[in-house]
This record gives sequence, C-alpha cells and structure tokens, in this order.
Amino acid sequence: MNIFALLTSAGINIGICALLLSLYSVLRKQPGNVSVYFGRRLAEQQNRSLDSFSLERFVPSPGWIVKAWKTSDEEILASAGLDAVAFVRMLVFSIRIFSIAAVVCLFGVLPLNYYGQYRHHVKIPSESLDVFTIANVEQGSRWLWVHCLALYIISCSAYVLLYFEYRRIAQMRLIHITQSSPNPSHFTVLVRSIPWPEEGSLSDVVHNFFTKYHASSYLSHQMIYRVGKVQKLMNDAEKVYKKVCLKANMMDQKHCPLKYRSGLCVEAANTSQLSHDEFDLSAKNKDLGLSDSTTKLQECAAAFVFFKTRYAAVIASEVLQSSNPMSWVTDLAPEPHDVHWSNLWIPYRQLWFRRIATRLASIVFMFLFIVPVTFVQGLSQLDQLQQAFPFLKGILKKIVLSRWQEKKHMLQGLVFYYMECVLCQCLIWIYYQPAKYHIESEGNTYTACQSCPKATFFITYVLTSGWASLSSEAIRLFSLIWNFTKKYIFGRKNDPTSVPSFPYHTEVPRVLLFGLLGFTCAILAPLILPFLLVYFLLGYVVYRNQILNVYVSKYETGGRMWPIAHNTTIFSLLLAQIIALGVFGVKKSPVASGFVIPLLIFTLLFSEYCRQRFRPIFEKFSAQDLIEMDKEDETCGRMDEIHQQLQSAYRQFSPDSDSSESAEDDGSIARDVDVKDCSN
Amino acid sequence: MNIFALLTSAGINIGICALLLSLYSVLRKQPGNVSVYFGRRLAEQQNRSLDSFSLERFVPSPGWIVKAWKTSDEEILASAGLDAVAFVRMLVFSIRIFSIAAVVCLFGVLPLNYYGQYRHHVKIPSESLDVFTIANVEQGSRWLWVHCLALYIISCSAYVLLYFEYRRIAQMRLIHITQSSPNPSHFTVLVRSIPWPEEGSLSDVVHNFFTKYHASSYLSHQMIYRVGKVQKLMNDAEKVYKKVCLKANMMDQKHCPLKYRSGLCVEAANTSQLSHDEFDLSAKNKDLGLSDSTTKLQECAAAFVFFKTRYAAVIASEVLQSSNPMSWVTDLAPEPHDVHWSNLWIPYRQLWFRRIATRLASIVFMFLFIVPVTFVQGLSQLDQLQQAFPFLKGILKKIVLSRWQEKKHMLQGLVFYYMECVLCQCLIWIYYQPAKYHIESEGNTYTACQSCPKATFFITYVLTSGWASLSSEAIRLFSLIWNFTKKYIFGRKNDPTSVPSFPYHTEVPRVLLFGLLGFTCAILAPLILPFLLVYFLLGYVVYRNQILNVYVSKYETGGRMWPIAHNTTIFSLLLAQIIALGVFGVKKSPVASGFVIPLLIFTLLFSEYCRQRFRPIFEKFSAQDLIEMDKEDETCGRMDEIHQQLQSAYRQFSPDSDSSESAEDDGSIARDVDVKDCSN
Repeated sequence: MNIFALLTSAGINIGICALLLSLYSVLRKQPGNVSVYFGRRLAEQQNRSLDSFSLERFVPSPGWIVKAWKTSDEEILASAGLDAVAFVRMLVFSIRIFSIAAVVCLFGVLPLNYYGQYRHHVKIPSESLDVFTIANVEQGSRWLWVHCLALYIISCSAYVLLYFEYRRIAQMRLIHITQSSPNPSHFTVLVRSIPWPEEGSLSDVVHNFFTKYHASSYLSHQMIYRVGKVQKLMNDAEKVYKKVCLKANMMDQKHCPLKYRSGLCVEAANTSQLSHDEFDLSAKNKDLGLSDSTTKLQECAAAFVFFKTRYAAVIASEVLQSSNPMSWVTDLAPEPHDVHWSNLWIPYRQLWFRRIATRLASIVFMFLFIVPVTFVQGLSQLDQLQQAFPFLKGILKKIVLSRWQEKKHMLQGLVFYYMECVLCQCLIWIYYQPAKYHIESEGNTYTACQSCPKATFFITYVLTSGWASLSSEAIRLFSLIWNFTKKYIFGRKNDPTSVPSFPYHTEVPRVLLFGLLGFTCAILAPLILPFLLVYFLLGYVVYRNQILNVYVSKYETGGRMWPIAHNTTIFSLLLAQIIALGVFGVKKSPVASGFVIPLLIFTLLFSEYCRQRFRPIFEKFSAQDLIEMDKEDETCGRMDEIHQQLQSAYRQFSPDSDSSESAEDDGSIARDVDVKDCSN
Repeated sequence: MNIFALLTSAGINIGICALLLSLYSVLRKQPGNVSVYFGRRLAEQQNRSLDSFSLERFVPSPGWIVKAWKTSDEEILASAGLDAVAFVRMLVFSIRIFSIAAVVCLFGVLPLNYYGQYRHHVKIPSESLDVFTIANVEQGSRWLWVHCLALYIISCSAYVLLYFEYRRIAQMRLIHITQSSPNPSHFTVLVRSIPWPEEGSLSDVVHNFFTKYHASSYLSHQMIYRVGKVQKLMNDAEKVYKKVCLKANMMDQKHCPLKYRSGLCVEAANTSQLSHDEFDLSAKNKDLGLSDSTTKLQECAAAFVFFKTRYAAVIASEVLQSSNPMSWVTDLAPEPHDVHWSNLWIPYRQLWFRRIATRLASIVFMFLFIVPVTFVQGLSQLDQLQQAFPFLKGILKKIVLSRWQEKKHMLQGLVFYYMECVLCQCLIWIYYQPAKYHIESEGNTYTACQSCPKATFFITYVLTSGWASLSSEAIRLFSLIWNFTKKYIFGRKNDPTSVPSFPYHTEVPRVLLFGLLGFTCAILAPLILPFLLVYFLLGYVVYRNQILNVYVSKYETGGRMWPIAHNTTIFSLLLAQIIALGVFGVKKSPVASGFVIPLLIFTLLFSEYCRQRFRPIFEKFSAQDLIEMDKEDETCGRMDEIHQQLQSAYRQFSPDSDSSESAEDDGSIARDVDVKDCSN
C-alpha cells in the first residue's frame, strides 16, 4: 500500500463518516426517532415536543457536536454518573497522550524513517507505507536514539497523565461516596453459608449470632427464601393480572368513552383487591399454622443483616466471622435493585466451584477465538509466507490471493472486532517475530521492511473499524430499524422504561484496544497516529452525545472501571517498550536497547505505586469516611428514618405490592413454614 | 549404573549412617557435650548431672531412637510449640504417602517396567537401573493403564492425607490461639505513615485520630523514635557495663572466695544505679525543657496503638483507615521480642520500593544459581549430548568423562543441595525434554531408555545427600568442634542462653524437595521409593530427637508454615501429573494421557477448596474467637491487668531497665523534644 492508496482510503472513510453523521443530525430531529436518539431525555422528562414541522428539520447541522463538546465533566457527572465520567476521561487521556505522541513522532521519528536508508525516493504519493516505518532505518543506525528518546517522552507523558487522571477519578469517587444519599446497601451485609441448627430456625441462629457478637451495631435481619413452584406461579399470575389491568386501562383510554371507563377500572380494582386479599389470606393461614403443603417457603442459608451504621456493616463484611472460613461468609450487600434472588439460593460451597468453571470456560473461549484470528492474520502475511516457503508462491497466488485480496481487510477487521482482546496481538507478535528474524538473517534486505508491526493493517483497521464503529454508534442503525418496524408494522407504542444503558462492556475494551495500537505503533509506524487521534476526537464527541441523550445509567459502579483502564494502559506501555526493545535489538543498536530496560523497570514501579496509592480507594471504604458519614446522619437525625427504610429495602416477593411484606419482614414467618436444607 | 552398584552404594551409605548414629549415641552421653546435644534441656533446667563415670557411657545404644519415636505429638506441642508439630506432621505425611506409593509401585509398576520389552534379561544384579524405569516399557504398550492407575491411587491418597493433615493443623492452630496466654501483640496495632501535622506533635495527631474514630476501643499509644547517635552510644555503654558486671560476677564465682564476691556485686550495683540515675537525669532535663542538643529523640511517623480488646485491634488493623491508602497504614503489631526498631524508622513510602527490590534481587539470585546447576546437570546428560551431537563423542570422552566420572554425583549433589529449589528441576525438564523427543523421533530405540527422569541421579542424591544430611544433623559436627575449641582452647564456659533455634528455613525446603522427587519419580522410576522411605523414617527419628533435646523455639508462627508445605506438595503432585502426561504422550498412549487430565483438574479444584476452607485460618483471626477470648478475660477480671502490662510491653530503649520508660510512655515527652520529619 502506498501513500496515495492510504489517502484515498482515508478520503472514502471520511466521506462515509461525514455522510453518516450528517444523516444522524437530520434523523435526530425527526419526532418519530425521539425514542432512538433521546431515550435518556424521554425517560427523564416523559414528554418532549418536537412535533412542529419546519424545513430546518431536514438540514444537517453541527449543533449537537458543539453541544457535546461544550458539556463539562460536572454536567456529565450530574446527569450520567461517575462511570460515564471515567469513560470520558479515558478518551481525554487518549487524546492528550496521542497528541503528544503525534507531535513527537511525526516531526522527530517520521523524517528519520523516511531518510533512513540511502535509497532512491520516488514521489511521496507513490511511496510505500513501509518507507515511513522503522523498517526503513538501516541496521546499526546511529539515529535510533531518536526513537528511544521518543519512547521516553511518550512513556513519561503517559506516567504523568495517568497519575493525574487516576488521582482525579479517585477524588471524584471519594466525593461520590461521601456525598451520596444514604444507600441501604451500605448498611447491609449479605451473610451466606449460615450453619444449619439442630433445632430451631435459621432465623434464630442469625439473630443469636449477631446479637452475641455484634450486639452494639446489629439492627435486624431478613432471611432469603427459596421460592417454590406454586409461589412462582402466583407471582406470575399477579404479573399477568397487572398486564391485563394495564391493557384494559389503555384500551379504555383509546376506544371507550367515559361511561365504560369507570366500570372497567372498578372491576380491575376489585380483581386487584381480590388477589391481594387472597395473598393476605394465605399469609394469615400460615400465621395460624395452616400452612398449605404446596406453598412452602424454604429458608436458605443466606440472609441480609442490617446494621445501625455503615462502619459496622463494613467491619462485619471484612472481618473473618467464624473459625470455619466456609461458614458465616459475609460480604457487603448488593444494591436492592441489583439483587438476583435466585443467585442467592446457591449454596456457598457451590459458588467457588462455579467461579472456577466460569474462569476455565472463559479461557477456553478465548483460545477458541484465537484460531480464526490467527488464521485471518496469517492471510495478511501471505507475502512473508511466500518468502519463507517459495513453493507456496504459485499456489497462493492462484487460490488465495484472488479470493481474499479484496475482502481481506474487511474480514480481518470483523474478526478483530469480535476479539477486541489484547492476547491475540501478543500471540501474533510472538508467533511472527522469530519468522521475520529468520528471514532477515538470510541477508535478504528487502524483507527487513516487513519487520515492523503490520502498520498498513492497523492503519486500515483504525480507518475502517474505528471510524465506522463511531458513526454507526451515533446513528444507531439497529435501534432505528427496530423502532420503525415496531411502530409501523407492529403498531406498538414506545415504552419509556426500555431505554438501554451504556454498553461499557463493548466500548471500554474497544477504546483500550485502540490505545494499545497507538502505544505499540507510535515509534515504529508514526503514520497511524493522526488517524488514531481523529478516532479519539470523534469518539469524544459521539460518546458524550450518546451519554447525554441516549443511554441511561442503570447501574453505577462509582468509577470502578478506571483501575482496569489504568492497568490496561500500563500493559500497553509495557508491551510497546518490550517491542521497542526487540526491534532495537533486531536493528543491532545495543545502546538503544539498553536504555529501554530502565524504562521497563520504571513502568513496573509506577504501576506498583499507583496500585498502592489509589487501588484500595476503588475496592474498600475507609473508616474515616464512613464514620464521618454516620456521624453526619446522626447529628441530622436522619438515622432513624434510614433504619426504618432498611426494613423494606430488600423485597424478595412481588416488589410492587405491599401484601407479601409479611412474609419477609424479619423472618418471623420462618418459624411456621417447613424448613428444608438448601444450604450446603 | 546397575543394581549391584546401587546396592553397594546403598550398603556403604547405610554403613556410614549407622556409624555416625552410633557415634552420636556415644557422644551424647559425654558430659562435655551436653551443650551440643541437650541445649534445650540445659536452657530449661539450667543444670543436668551426667558427670557420673560409667562404662555404659562409651557403648552405643538405641535408647534415643526409641524415645524419639515414642514421644507423642502432644508432648512435642507442649515442649516445642506448634511449628515443631507442623514440621513433624510433614514427615508423617511423607512417610504415609510414600508407603502407599511404595506398595503400589513396587508390586504394580516395577514388574511391568522390568518385563516391558521383550529383551533378553541378564541376572538381576547386573541389570541396568533403566530397565526398572518406565523407559523400558515399549511405545504404545497396553499396560500403561497400570501406571495411570498407580498415579490415581497416589494422587487420591495424597488428597485424603493432605486434607486431614490440614484440618488437624488448622484445629491445633485454633486451639493454640484461643488457649494462649494474653499476648500484647494481639491488642496492639502498628500504625505507619502518620500524616505530619502543621503544628503540634505527631503524638497529638495519633491521639486525636484514634479518640475520634475509635473512641470506644482506643486505650493509648506509644510513639516510635529515631535514635540519635548519642542515644546509641549510651545504649552501647549500658550494654558494655552489663557485660563487665556479668564477667565480674562470673570471675567472682570462679576464682574468688565469698569475701570478695559481695564487694564486687555491691560496686556493680552501684555502677548500675549510677547509670540509671544519669539516664533519669537526662530524662528529667528534657522534661524541664533543658533538652541537650546532642540527645534529640526524633519522632517517627510510626506508633504502636493499644486497644482495649483483641477484636478492636484486629478491626483497626484490617479496615482501611483513611481515604488516602498511603497514610494511617495499620497492621497487627509484631510480638515485643520480635520488634526490630530500626526497621520501624523506615518511612512507609520506601517500604514498597524496598519490597520490590528484594523480590527482584531474589529472582536474579535464583537465576544466577541456575547457571552452575544446569551446567553440572548437563554433565550427567553427557551420553545424550553425544548422541545428539556425534562429533562431541571423542572430545567428551577424552576431556570430560575421565575427569568428572568420579566426582560427578558428589558435585551434583553438592550444588543441588545448595539450590534446594523447585524451579531448577522444572527448568531441566523443560530444557531436556524436547531434545529427548527429538532423538526418539529419529527412530533410535535405545535412546528411548533415556526418556525417564534421571532416576539414577536422584536415587544417588537421596542416598548421599539425604541420608548423610540426617546423620550430620544428628551428630552436629560443627557445633561439636566449636564446643570443643571454645572449651579447651579459649577456655570459655557454656552460655546457656546461646541455644540455637530449629533451622526451619533449611530443613523444610529439604524435606519438601525430597517429597517432590518422590512424587515425580514414583511411577516413572519406582526404585527410588524405598530409599526415600528410609530417608523419611530416619528423618522422623532424628528431627524429633533434635527438637526434643537440642533446639529451643525462639519464635512461634503458630503453624503458619503448613500452608506453604501444603501448596508445595500440591505443586509436586501437579508436576508429577504433568510429567506423567508428557511421558504417556511420548509412549504414544493417548488413553493414559487423557485420563491424567481429569486428575490435573481435580488437583486444582482440591487446591482451591483447601485454600478457601483452611487458608484464612492461618492468615486472620476470626471475630468469634477473638470476642470469646475478650469476654473470658473480662469475666475473669484479667483485662485491667492486661491493659497495665500493655503500657510497658514494647520498650524501645534498654529493654532491661525501667529507667527509660519515661521517654516512651505515652509519647508525652514528644512535646518537648525537637521534632524532625522522618515520615515520608
């Protein structure tokens, strides 16, 4: 690939991106697409008037870009939470570090690469891309110290930026924790593997244990029940009933005039009352000892235990409770809306086994993915394969090249997109590096050009997969089509509660992967940097826009993804340095190689320092903060109110109705129902 | 090496062992050697009458063996502590598992190996040792399932035995903790990296912090001071004075009749008094603000904080104190006699850096050792080297073989002895395994005999290094000679306080290394097992004897070495299974290979289960136990007494005198002395 081809490719991609984003700026103004592009606002405000027809609706406008760019971090924090801010900070960090890298490498390293070998230069547009990579620097060149210096500048800038970002997010997290409104999960401990008593109920055991060992701070507890089949059926029936009632209401509003409405509603209300009465009756039956054999509630060896203060709950969750570490296992409780009740029924002794199985499965899955990726990656190395095994030349040309040459990058991008994992990159490096070295040692100078990472491939990957993913993220094609289909074919109305949450699980790895590409390619093939910078700038605008308008934050980790991003960046830095070490070695520059080693050690030390300095903030709550929060609540007289709320925060049965509360209140019902062992 | 040579070697070694142990049984009866062989009893009883001359003193007797054998674990626990019991249990476990392995492998695997190939068998004494290893089983043999079954039996027995041993030691540890007398370290937390105040002293900061956040449980605290040079000189002077006084006393007892003794002692007492008075004076000077510029006590950013209960101390040590994880770093305090004060002066921010440096240094050190070991190990592979590189044959025969053939095993044993680490074994395996496979694939059937581990070498290693080390451990040659020299050349008396403590740091790795050899060789070369069994039986007797008679336990970890031993044994099992997997693969028995994989997975699961079930017991104290202990002390009315003792438990200056207590009591002096930053 030469410069002209690259520029053409870039031009096409820029065109596509511009087109898609213009299309987006028009589509977002259409009232029919409000649920696609303004899901978040819809959920917040419930109604949004965009119905007025005007010509302006069909003219592309950059207003949304300006708005997304100008919104401050504080506004994002206020509207979308700390996780969104952490994600935006990842983009900001990337923009900053790759701006520095671009300046250093484009003005320092690139000319050096270009004039690295005394070869006849053709016109720049016709130059091969390899001429701009480190592969063009001759072996034993005295100018490799410039590459080494660039690596030093990039690494040191990364340390400084990473440190300040980590500190900033850590401070935000501390403020997030201390300023947050009282959260039931801070006062609650999930106790698992409660030892089964010889007589009496589990509830008594929990009560006795905590009044004995945590007398001063124990408030109350709530047992967790394994729901029987009949119980499940009843819950389902209640759900169906509610739906029917809702539909009746809707139909009522739609078709029937006033006179019918009241009747239906009354009936619905009666049915509702009846159902509730039935439930109450069954609860009363239980209280009277008339337990129905089909509606047994089985106590599980797990319970939520409520404490008077946050500090007491944290202590109970962190200290080893019993001399048998497999019983009385305590953890801070999840947030009420985040509880998956059927998971809590799993006996603790199965948990570790399941965790190992999950880990094993994920490793197997990862390795399974490596096979196709390595195969496809191998296709991009066809020319090398040919040189290593000359007999393949004819066969390859006939069979493979003709079929794959066009689709190659697309397919690569596709598979790579699915991988989005770092391991593959490493594996390919390890796998192909010795082969390259072997070829070089045979004295073939031309193949030395191949010894830098697949710059062409990665640049194309950034252009296609990177830029395209952002445009498609903005335009949300699938949602758009689904919205259209739903509305005009199935005739359904928008459901304001079905707003999606931000897909951190796919977007964070993607951004980090591009960071990895940037670090590893920066000094080897600096041409990638401008394209990467455009990706991050575009990403900054698009993601902020989506966070502000489209997605709601259903779950808030309080910025806990930052340590992952930090560690991955450190890994990328380390990998870049190790690759540089190897390339300098291949280029026979022991001085440059030698200077990379202190950098490697410093990176490890920096990582360790950050781990010590900031990591615990993201994993634990500090005594100082918790006690201050507790004291503040006490002086404000909020504590009693919080204790009251705690009692009804975690509801196992039909969260919308109050009727089943009697069954879960403080586990008193447990004394009347049949007790079955589902603990261990 | 053939069977006859092996038996001869064994005979010689048995003879040497018998001779040394007989010599020991005589030497231990000599009154002059009491300090060498009964250091522990000497320290306990102060005097021991063995002076009566009798002929029996010069006749070897097996009485000590019987006594060492019959002593119960409870007696060892009572006299030498839990660590000694844990060490003995390691030996018991080894004896049990290798008895099972010996029965299974000698009766099941060994005949199969011997008749594995239809070759002409010579008389057994002239058979090569390789004929008794798995190398003699032909490729694709249908009898390899016996080896696989033996591996299953050994592994499953190991799981059962390991589980029960772990449980037993864990129970003993729990009893050890709950039954132990009140220990100041259980009530004390070492706080490091106390933030430096803008005004006021560090002591005030500590006081304010703990009265604010741990008001209900905080008792008092004691600052740690960086000792200036003059302070050090004074301490040294006091030590010299004490020595002079002791010598005077000794001389007094030795040469002078009663009339002189009293005078000297009175004078000594006066000197002592004088010195103490001086110290008091300097302390008083400080109190009056007349601080001497040369005797400044610099406050360090570290302190011992005392709590009212054990539970409170554990909470304070485990919970993150401040929102800055690098300040207010808390840990449970070490035991008073285990404090190394100058280590506590090190600022916390240097600590992690030092830890990393230590780790790096140990890795470098390990790799440095691998070079000579691999070289020496390489010498034992000379025949293989010759086959791989035929041109070496002549050269090697001339130069190396003639020089090394005799000394080979001794030198190997020596270097191996120094290594005593597992990594080397792995490295050699990884290094030589591909070479072997390569040779085999060339169709040379004879070399297949070489593909089992160096059975000959390891058997010789057990015979020489193993047995000899035990005999020399019993006879304690260096101590014997040193005792003789000290007594008859320098004319010094025995110092009852200089009894050595048990060298766990060398003996535990040694025993574990032999365990590793046993597991990895068991099914491949079963002939090693009887020799290993003799080693463990002999070790059982010798170590128990030494624990009972020679060594004192100066430091008690409460059996915390057991998890290390357990994990190492698991590692040995895993390694044995991986090697078996490889060997079955080389022998082209996919079924046997396939059956090893579930075993590998089960070993990992077992390891994970034990880690969850038992490990926390060795790392943390449980709330239940601590609260029970606290309650018991309170009901017995011991608590006030304990609190009183806490105040004087940790003494930084002159631990034997009470005079310096004023300087460290509760840090009140800190307000008067100059304060310098030595924190971070």
